[in-house]
Amino acid sequence: MKTIDLNCDLGESFGNYSIGMDDHVMEYITSANIACGWHAGDPMVMDKTVQMAKKYGVMPGAHPGYPDLPGFGRRHMNCTEHEIQQYMVYQIGALQAFCHVHNIPLQHVKPHGALYLDAVENKKTARAIAKAILSVDASICFVALSGKKGETMRRMGRELGLKVVFEAFPDRAYTPEGTLVPRNEPNAVISDPDEVAGRALDMANGFVVAKDGSHIDLDVQTLCVHGDNIGAVNLVKEIRQRLENNAIMVAPMGAS
Amino acid sequence: MKTIDLNCDLGESFGNYSIGMDDHVMEYITSANIACGWHAGDPMVMDKTVQMAKKYGVMPGAHPGYPDLPGFGRRHMNCTEHEIQQYMVYQIGALQAFCHVHNIPLQHVKPHGALYLDAVENKKTARAIAKAILSVDASICFVALSGKKGETMRRMGRELGLKVVFEAFPDRAYTPEGTLVPRNEPNAVISDPDEVAGRALDMANGFVVAKDGSHIDLDVQTLCVHGDNIGAVNLVKEIRQRLENNAIMVAPMGAS
Amino acid sequence: MKTIDLNCDLGESFGNYSIGMDDHVMEYITSANIACGWHAGDPMVMDKTVQMAKKYGVMPGAHPGYPDLPGFGRRHMNCTEHEIQQYMVYQIGALQAFCHVHNIPLQHVKPHGALYLDAVENKKTARAIAKAILSVDASICFVALSGKKGETMRRMGRELGLKVVFEAFPDRAYTPEGTLVPRNEPNAVISDPDEVAGRALDMANGFVVAKDGSHIDLDVQTLCVHGDNIGAVNLVKEIRQRLENNAIMVAPMGAS
Amino acid sequence: MKTIDLNCDLGESFGNYSIGMDDHVMEYITSANIACGWHAGDPMVMDKTVQMAKKYGVMPGAHPGYPDLPGFGRRHMNCTEHEIQQYMVYQIGALQAFCHVHNIPLQHVKPHGALYLDAVENKKTARAIAKAILSVDASICFVALSGKKGETMRRMGRELGLKVVFEAFPDRAYTPEGTLVPRNEPNAVISDPDEVAGRALDMANGFVVAKDGSHIDLDVQTLCVHGDNIGAVNLVKEIRQRLENNAIMVAPMGAS
Repeated sequence: MKTIDLNCDLGESFGNYSIGMDDHVMEYITSANIACGWHAGDPMVMDKTVQMAKKYGVMPGAHPGYPDLPGFGRRHMNCTEHEIQQYMVYQIGALQAFCHVHNIPLQHVKPHGALYLDAVENKKTARAIAKAILSVDASICFVALSGKKGETMRRMGRELGLKVVFEAFPDRAYTPEGTLVPRNEPNAVISDPDEVAGRALDMANGFVVAKDGSHIDLDVQTLCVHGDNIGAVNLVKEIRQRLENNAIMVAPMGAS
Repeated sequence: MKTIDLNCDLGESFGNYSIGMDDHVMEYITSANIACGWHAGDPMVMDKTVQMAKKYGVMPGAHPGYPDLPGFGRRHMNCTEHEIQQYMVYQIGALQAFCHVHNIPLQHVKPHGALYLDAVENKKTARAIAKAILSVDASICFVALSGKKGETMRRMGRELGLKVVFEAFPDRAYTPEGTLVPRNEPNAVISDPDEVAGRALDMANGFVVAKDGSHIDLDVQTLCVHGDNIGAVNLVKEIRQRLENNAIMVAPMGAS
Repeated sequence: MKTIDLNCDLGESFGNYSIGMDDHVMEYITSANIACGWHAGDPMVMDKTVQMAKKYGVMPGAHPGYPDLPGFGRRHMNCTEHEIQQYMVYQIGALQAFCHVHNIPLQHVKPHGALYLDAVENKKTARAIAKAILSVDASICFVALSGKKGETMRRMGRELGLKVVFEAFPDRAYTPEGTLVPRNEPNAVISDPDEVAGRALDMANGFVVAKDGSHIDLDVQTLCVHGDNIGAVNLVKEIRQRLENNAIMVAPMGAS
Repeated sequence: MKTIDLNCDLGESFGNYSIGMDDHVMEYITSANIACGWHAGDPMVMDKTVQMAKKYGVMPGAHPGYPDLPGFGRRHMNCTEHEIQQYMVYQIGALQAFCHVHNIPLQHVKPHGALYLDAVENKKTARAIAKAILSVDASICFVALSGKKGETMRRMGRELGLKVVFEAFPDRAYTPEGTLVPRNEPNAVISDPDEVAGRALDMANGFVVAKDGSHIDLDVQTLCVHGDNIGAVNLVKEIRQRLENNAIMVAPMGAS
């Protein structure tokens, strides 16, 4: 039976500021990317989110980012490879402690925002993250972009012997080369729930329909979904139902 | 053979700012209290300090503080017990990851600055720290103030089954009640190296001479020393020699 | 004709985090207490909020707080008088620059959260704030708690020659001594819109009905209202209407 | 009589961390670039540094940077033009308040570290800084890189009508094109005090000797010097003496 994971960024509230419908989307996902207090999140939120993940049978992962709370980790910072590596050890370690407290393993690491984009583009960034994961716990999954553009992350992870898990985006248009259509281009983001659910199913079956209509093979183990608002949550519900109605098992990435 | 530990606050540099003669004082101490990035320290400093500790046979400990970098963790903040507990899990977890990277256990936790003072005065603060230690790793030592004033920390630690380690200050004057003479009183700090070394030996032998000349029993397993400047480092060297010349074994607190 | 000001905390969004219905409540208030980036707010939010205030004929004021973003400035920090004074100069200066950019004067300073509470209790805190205001611009109003408990703030402000403006809370119960009923006591907060509007009118007329039914004189020039959600905004609207329907002029505190 | 300004980065201490020999180098310089609390500095340091500048007849300037205290503002961050502009208004405004407190005008703005480099390379960054200066106080000088590479900053400043002041570096080698030899190339930094002083004199006279021996015209109104340690301070002293011994008047940039 084919299996797919649904991952979602969670635990992004901070202090007096609340965002995300974490407790609603938890019902439908299988992996939670939990912010580690640098671009979002704080220790109370981390504790609560790990606890909530456990309750829902969702596996926790670290979602580390640049030290940029005012920019929500969405701004590139030219940190050195050494700095990024230590930043990752720190953030992964902090979240791992909360996982330990709640007696659940830390399943994966998925870099956030600009750090993710830099890891896609930049060998040093991808390697720094992979080295940090390896040094903290070699059994932690490294979530990387699926398709051609994810090659750098994939190679850096595999060279170190990590389990690399490929991620795709059912609500994003793809080029015939199997890369994401940039957000500033028209129709880069797909909003029709039925279409997004259909694409999620395609991806679970190993392909995606590009914007020119061609079918492209895509090696995917996890789909990135969102829990920002009630519409997003309903979409995740629909994706999950579509997958399960079509004999796809939805399960945490670490289980496969 | 009697045994005593020498602990010192280290890893307090931050970014472009360097303080402390960490690499000099490491030669003489046995336990390092390493800042965790909240009141001082950063991931690169944490990594380097744990590595240096291992090289010198010094055991690393977490030195967590309030989230107050501009105040160096020296200002009381009225956080809730829940906040303090999660703040501790976060900081201890982050340092623990660096210890894991360098394949050395995290030996102890000693709260920093205002957090330490609050733990001495306030049951909730002491309990929050103890609960965090217990939840992260029950084998980690909890460093607490020796003497009468340390009773709250001791009790909170022991109620949870932690190994509580008592600390004394050879360069500080003591009252006949076995408490520290407040810093704003005359002669609160003792600066003569010979006298300080002598007091360290007394403490290792289980007593201290109070400011009125009386001898007070003091249950002490670790002595707090400083590495701020070359004078401080030389004093640590002298303390260590005095102890060893008098058949006291200087060894990490976790070993005893 | 009697005059009263309506002040509201605004500009508390930060980076990716949005809170408050600033653009809705602006229609009804006359003075905006704008966060200065330390406990809430950021430069983009400050710029936008000053601009919005000007558009609505609302006078901008600085709402400085402790350096505690994770705690939203609601946690006491034992800063020195000197530290608080410089913290105030910094935050007031930053907001003043945005006022200058939009060609509108900075009308007032109202300390936020724990800093306000500390200024009420503590002469040094109140004096530090007053000294900072005086040194930056002696014509800026200093918002202080009305009633007996506000005496310290009032005295510190007046000793330095500042214009001190007294604030009352129409949605809070008062003791027969003219002080606020603490929030943890029953019925400390009044939620009935009609009652709150009635109390606002009483306050504008110089008195408040205490929880024992007695009428207490209260010297009030500004009423603190809230814009957190649509219910709060509607309440402000109702307060304003009640005041205007009863021949009270609603105008910025600096105008009177 | 020819005139030149000597500017130096100061006020970079933070909380418990002290760097720079501010009180020694103040004797020899004429303009102080004062950190504004984002990449370095804090309100107490800003207050003290402005006060010290006034005492020594040194004119204060703002030295704003990216919001990156852990990286000392030396890491590029891809902020938007709007963000940079508001970041500048905030930081300039904060320092301006301290200048007002000490009754001395804010003379200039010189961006720090990565922000400076980005302003050199990037029209949007240079324009954001210039727009912020203009909006806060059009009489503030905008310090820009002298020579060909400084064209973007110069143009952005002049288009808005700002007084642009060109800066050169006597301790740095120059290419025959009048640009700085990159730091990672050999002999990029000149350490011989006599040679540096001689180059400072050349620059005050409107030229520099490039690394190939050619003389290049350079329009310079201020020379950047350093106060990091006693050697650096002595070099500034030597530069000043060399200039004055050769009939160059050393005076604040704003005076000319």
